[in-house]
Amino acid sequence: MEASRLIVNCLPLTAEERDRFLAAAPDVRQEFVGVPEQRGAMVWKAVVPEGLRAGATAVIGNVPAADAGDYPRLEWIQTWSAGVDQYLRPGVLADGVMVTSASGAYGQSVSEHLFALMWALMRHLPAYRDQQREGRWADLGRAVSPVGATVLVIGTGDIGSHFARLAHAVGSTVLGVRRDPSKPAEGFDGMFGFDQLDELLPSADVVVSIVPSSPTTHHLLDAGRLALMRPGAIVLNGGRGDAVDPDALLEALRAGAIAGAGLDVTEPEPLPADHPLWREPRCVITPHVAGGMHLEATEDRIIDIALGNVGAYAAGRPLSNRRR
Amino acid sequence: MEASRLIVNCLPLTAEERDRFLAAAPDVRQEFVGVPEQRGAMVWKAVVPEGLRAGATAVIGNVPAADAGDYPRLEWIQTWSAGVDQYLRPGVLADGVMVTSASGAYGQSVSEHLFALMWALMRHLPAYRDQQREGRWADLGRAVSPVGATVLVIGTGDIGSHFARLAHAVGSTVLGVRRDPSKPAEGFDGMFGFDQLDELLPSADVVVSIVPSSPTTHHLLDAGRLALMRPGAIVLNGGRGDAVDPDALLEALRAGAIAGAGLDVTEPEPLPADHPLWREPRCVITPHVAGGMHLEATEDRIIDIALGNVGAYAAGRPLSNRRR
Repeated sequence: MEASRLIVNCLPLTAEERDRFLAAAPDVRQEFVGVPEQRGAMVWKAVVPEGLRAGATAVIGNVPAADAGDYPRLEWIQTWSAGVDQYLRPGVLADGVMVTSASGAYGQSVSEHLFALMWALMRHLPAYRDQQREGRWADLGRAVSPVGATVLVIGTGDIGSHFARLAHAVGSTVLGVRRDPSKPAEGFDGMFGFDQLDELLPSADVVVSIVPSSPTTHHLLDAGRLALMRPGAIVLNGGRGDAVDPDALLEALRAGAIAGAGLDVTEPEPLPADHPLWREPRCVITPHVAGGMHLEATEDRIIDIALGNVGAYAAGRPLSNRRR
Repeated sequence: MEASRLIVNCLPLTAEERDRFLAAAPDVRQEFVGVPEQRGAMVWKAVVPEGLRAGATAVIGNVPAADAGDYPRLEWIQTWSAGVDQYLRPGVLADGVMVTSASGAYGQSVSEHLFALMWALMRHLPAYRDQQREGRWADLGRAVSPVGATVLVIGTGDIGSHFARLAHAVGSTVLGVRRDPSKPAEGFDGMFGFDQLDELLPSADVVVSIVPSSPTTHHLLDAGRLALMRPGAIVLNGGRGDAVDPDALLEALRAGAIAGAGLDVTEPEPLPADHPLWREPRCVITPHVAGGMHLEATEDRIIDIALGNVGAYAAGRPLSNRRR
């Protein structure tokens, strides 16, 4: 056992999983401070005992960025989140500290949630649920199908690619929009740049926004772009709330300019109880629950990513999912 | 043009479609009495002018079985429904009258509706819709995924096979239950007989009933069978309402013996406004809207089936979808 390095692992591991980490890096000291009871909770919290901070060279878990100064020997942090923005801000970490994310762990959960929203809107399930409260048995008319539909996915990373495969598997034509359309991505029938978005919107039956928050994606779907869509179009947002202008969306839904919206993220967030989007019949809102730990498979993927990187760290090999 | 035969066509056709029927049987007289305005309506109604009934040798459309006596020369009836029970009852039609159904036209619509119900239940969308009414932003916890799930489809005809392909395409293992398990059906990973149902239920994550109404399927899912299911299981019914015992289902949902139910058909139907299943939070009810004309593709398929059979009838070839 080498004396110099110490991995402090905050994952809520089972005994069996802990053994796998020990086996992956037998020569590096590992301390397991995770709370197994957090397993199954929708949010994990990392707490590193103060006595371990000074010696830690690696941390597995989203420790508070504000505590970074407590880790003078830190070489590497592995987050369990897909986003690592808080650790990349200037001055948070010393030069040379590596940051790896859990990107790839959340694509299944977020895309499946958005897919569920799409299907529910296509078959008017929210409106039928509203009728159900009144015990009303009444036909709401024509539904739509993903077979032969054009699905436009804005943002073609892990989530977008996962969503594309789902939509493709049930008969849709899936077009992707990304910054660099020359980069391929699995599941897409065609790839386009952001400069082509306005040309694509009029032919889309489903428009899915899965873009991160940035100055260029703020109100990406605004009144002008919503006006380009078909009256039968469904809009889904699973990226950041501010990619869709909520006032413009409300207006488009009320005017029948689009057929429905499914939002797992909103602007602002949480959506205030008196916000009119809550009461717009053809808008379905879920409270940012597409990702997180909402699927058991996500936990398993995070642990797999961390385990692989612990092995690589011990062996001095390059880490996966490197963000810094 | 031969003088002897007359096809009375009640389909709500466009002018272009009418031309296709004329071209398919140029030597047989065809009268088109359909109401084009019915196109897009959820139910079609066939009305044959009395003056055409005595001469009709073939009728396309669900004319009232009670009027069958008005068609003394009838050789063939093509329904636009999948079920033809009303025409098969003894004494309704003379010996030798052929009956062909529109079986195959409804599988996509019914299976997609059930698939939407499955996804909605997996992501708790009905419960989130209930929260939405109150403007409540609150996480309802762990969701489930079809990836790796075992889906048990009871009834493996057109609808069941279509549902199997959908579930398989998103990562589920799909097992079918049918009277004769030696008959293959597309989309299934395994096929079993009804005598094996009780062995299969404990391992199913989703149980889909798509059986027709018959003495052997009445309350097929009763208290005993619901008790065999996993606490996490989802039950879907898109066949006939009486395949699921509503009292037993209510009890199973209240006790947490299963996780949720999605019903497009109920017993009785319509479900009375004061029925407790309407108010059971984890039961989603839609008013028998999975099939019918709820998808535009269904109309197209019915017309294609009828068109093919009109050509066969004119040429003296065997008809498809023959039920009598």
